[in-house]
Amino acid sequence: MKQEVKFIEENFSRFTGELKELLRISSVSTDSAYKNDIQNCAKWLKDHLEKIGLSKTEIIQTGKHPIVYSEYVSNSSTPTILIYGHYDVQPPDPLELWKSDPFEPVIENNLIIARGAVDDKGQMFIILKAIETLFKTKGCLPCNLKLVLEGEEECGSVSLFDFIKNNKEKLKADIALACDTAMVSENIPAITISLRGILYIELLVKTSDRDLHSGVYGGAITNPLNVISDLMSKIKDDVGKVTIPGFYDDVVELDESEKAAISQIPFDEKEWLKLIGSTGTKTENGCSIIEATTRRPSFNVHGIRGGYTGEGLKTVIPSEAAVKFSFRLAPNQKPEKILKGLQTYINNHIPGTVKYELRILTKADPVLIDKNNSYLRKAIDALEETFNTKAFLIGTGGSLPVVTSIKENLKIDTILMGFGLEEDGAHAPNESFSLNRFKKGIESFTRFLDSQSLS
Amino acid sequence: MKQEVKFIEENFSRFTGELKELLRISSVSTDSAYKNDIQNCAKWLKDHLEKIGLSKTEIIQTGKHPIVYSEYVSNSSTPTILIYGHYDVQPPDPLELWKSDPFEPVIENNLIIARGAVDDKGQMFIILKAIETLFKTKGCLPCNLKLVLEGEEECGSVSLFDFIKNNKEKLKADIALACDTAMVSENIPAITISLRGILYIELLVKTSDRDLHSGVYGGAITNPLNVISDLMSKIKDDVGKVTIPGFYDDVVELDESEKAAISQIPFDEKEWLKLIGSTGTKTENGCSIIEATTRRPSFNVHGIRGGYTGEGLKTVIPSEAAVKFSFRLAPNQKPEKILKGLQTYINNHIPGTVKYELRILTKADPVLIDKNNSYLRKAIDALEETFNTKAFLIGTGGSLPVVTSIKENLKIDTILMGFGLEEDGAHAPNESFSLNRFKKGIESFTRFLDSQSLS
Repeated sequence: MKQEVKFIEENFSRFTGELKELLRISSVSTDSAYKNDIQNCAKWLKDHLEKIGLSKTEIIQTGKHPIVYSEYVSNSSTPTILIYGHYDVQPPDPLELWKSDPFEPVIENNLIIARGAVDDKGQMFIILKAIETLFKTKGCLPCNLKLVLEGEEECGSVSLFDFIKNNKEKLKADIALACDTAMVSENIPAITISLRGILYIELLVKTSDRDLHSGVYGGAITNPLNVISDLMSKIKDDVGKVTIPGFYDDVVELDESEKAAISQIPFDEKEWLKLIGSTGTKTENGCSIIEATTRRPSFNVHGIRGGYTGEGLKTVIPSEAAVKFSFRLAPNQKPEKILKGLQTYINNHIPGTVKYELRILTKADPVLIDKNNSYLRKAIDALEETFNTKAFLIGTGGSLPVVTSIKENLKIDTILMGFGLEEDGAHAPNESFSLNRFKKGIESFTRFLDSQSLS
Repeated sequence: MKQEVKFIEENFSRFTGELKELLRISSVSTDSAYKNDIQNCAKWLKDHLEKIGLSKTEIIQTGKHPIVYSEYVSNSSTPTILIYGHYDVQPPDPLELWKSDPFEPVIENNLIIARGAVDDKGQMFIILKAIETLFKTKGCLPCNLKLVLEGEEECGSVSLFDFIKNNKEKLKADIALACDTAMVSENIPAITISLRGILYIELLVKTSDRDLHSGVYGGAITNPLNVISDLMSKIKDDVGKVTIPGFYDDVVELDESEKAAISQIPFDEKEWLKLIGSTGTKTENGCSIIEATTRRPSFNVHGIRGGYTGEGLKTVIPSEAAVKFSFRLAPNQKPEKILKGLQTYINNHIPGTVKYELRILTKADPVLIDKNNSYLRKAIDALEETFNTKAFLIGTGGSLPVVTSIKENLKIDTILMGFGLEEDGAHAPNESFSLNRFKKGIESFTRFLDSQSLS
């Protein structure tokens, strides 16, 4: 790796310049005003991939934004790695909070500041530069690659999911790899090995055909907002446990060594609370915040519609109301099973005179990568060699739909080796990425890919 | 009364014509576009009052809409009756649902159809025509009168409440009288002797400084919508009783004879449910609907603000949320005492890390008129003689702020002898009032006022 590290060092200023070029393209995916920029960005990437050695690159147009796809076949006896990244970015709003133009990158205190700096252009570019480094120093790549760079991550990835579903053979690989997650801190690397699943529900409750006056009808008529409050309250007991029978049956419980490992992850609870302006936490049975937010299920009400919420007062019993709520699911809970339990719970608790409808707004399985997965072991090695310190195995409390889609369709896990930090401000004004992490990321991925030749 | 009944009969067609004139004035109080119409209406009333014999009439301008005030002094040994009515009306919207012009009254099937027909121009006019009848048949009135006709009932009565508060001596009376309530049905008269009070609250709950992602924070952070659901749910037990200690202490319980009287009020539960499109009721301990909605307290959630209620989904834990809710209070519950209990309940149940603020949006004492009140007895007699059937003593579940204001400031009860019905559609398109009830109303009030001379 001496040669590769040297190459990265010598070319790093050029790498940074190229990343700036990529960041200048305002590839906002949610707003159709940026449609041409998205296309330009895909074109730029195709050209760049070809330039660094991936000659078999194509732009695949979809119903919305194009996918940039590239294949490299080295040797059928080496593994095939499916690499995922996304080149679209969040809108730059609110513009007035940016200190510089979101699409004119500036470097300050060794940070590159622009929309997409960390999410995900900067991190995606890490992988491209690792590939280039290997090509330029070795003349070829140590394994087979399939590269999928999408342009719809920030607006739902609908085209990508169709593409994966319809191209199972084309995308066949031994493992997937993405660079869109977080480290523990600036110099402490991590791999995300667990994701929570989700079951997001909308419940509509109707008790009469028209809004009623609470003076005239109050005391005799079921109020849908009271019904919803009741259901949302009783779904949890006093210590915060979900009361749906069987809810916890499939949760993978942490053993003592895993709990110990979590407790070793550097985490400053005071700082964490300060950042969000909260004065205290409440976790299931008082477990640690990290465990609670990554390896335990949670229940949240997201919004309740109905009645009157404007200024002043209205003495209304609404005829109907609706609530949005979700369960985050711990590994290995199954959304389908939780849904069944929820339906039984609602049937048992809702007054018999009330009409209701339950809609599933989204669901995703949780993910947990086996600690003994050989690709994971190599990824850990690559990080620890690069950073010269222990790499942590962490979980994230959200879901990454692409990981679920890859798992479901291609039956492979995704190694999530990311270099972001909360302080980078993904989605926020003045989004940034540290050049230190950008460089260490390139080194780490170069090491990881290189290690495949030995397998 | 023969003479008086004959006078009403002979002049009834003129009375109806005059009511039409009054209904043609579009005295909508909530919309400043109708400001001149309000003034014209007050002027029309002043002229009319003078014409029927009330020479001491004035228009009192206020910060908003004028009060028409009239005094008649007969004899210091007869009682003084404070008569209340309102000449303002609801906006006519939605206009497209009216079959005729809301301000061009038409008569169909013995119904007069126009905005204000029943609420309250038609009913207020009943009293004026009763006064005229007595003047014309007797040459004078049998008691002293103070007439207060306001123009802000449909927009909060702020000026009226100030007027009452600042004119306690001027308005001094033995009893108040209003014609703005309901009968049991077309030919079954009623007097409203109880009103529920109200305590209407807004509770704001804040748990963090910014909205949080439920994937990242779910399981460790208190969600204000969950807090609100909990508080709203646990405020009632499983049989629908409010759990605040002492909540029921002051409720005037109905004795067996009162329950029996309520059960005799004609009431078709099936029809009632059909009208509101509901399939069932739920009352406290299964008591009757009439008891539940008029003589028992009730609790209702009116609206919950916070989080996301738009289309699709957002995985948000909002930083703050708010709920509007109210208690309807049975005679003799005191809003201040209920508020204290509520504050204790919230303090005991809200998580310690949560900031909250409790705002009182409105409060009013309940009202219960003593069944042995002598004016009430005379009002019952007047109704029973006119309709030739038993008059019922009923309650209404809402509050009438003017009754509370009169009670608080002038220390007198208000006899609520009204002739409206649900089917008249007060506030709705095609509002109407039956000429049958208009005429019987005039007879009833004539009898009632006449009976004062004998006291």
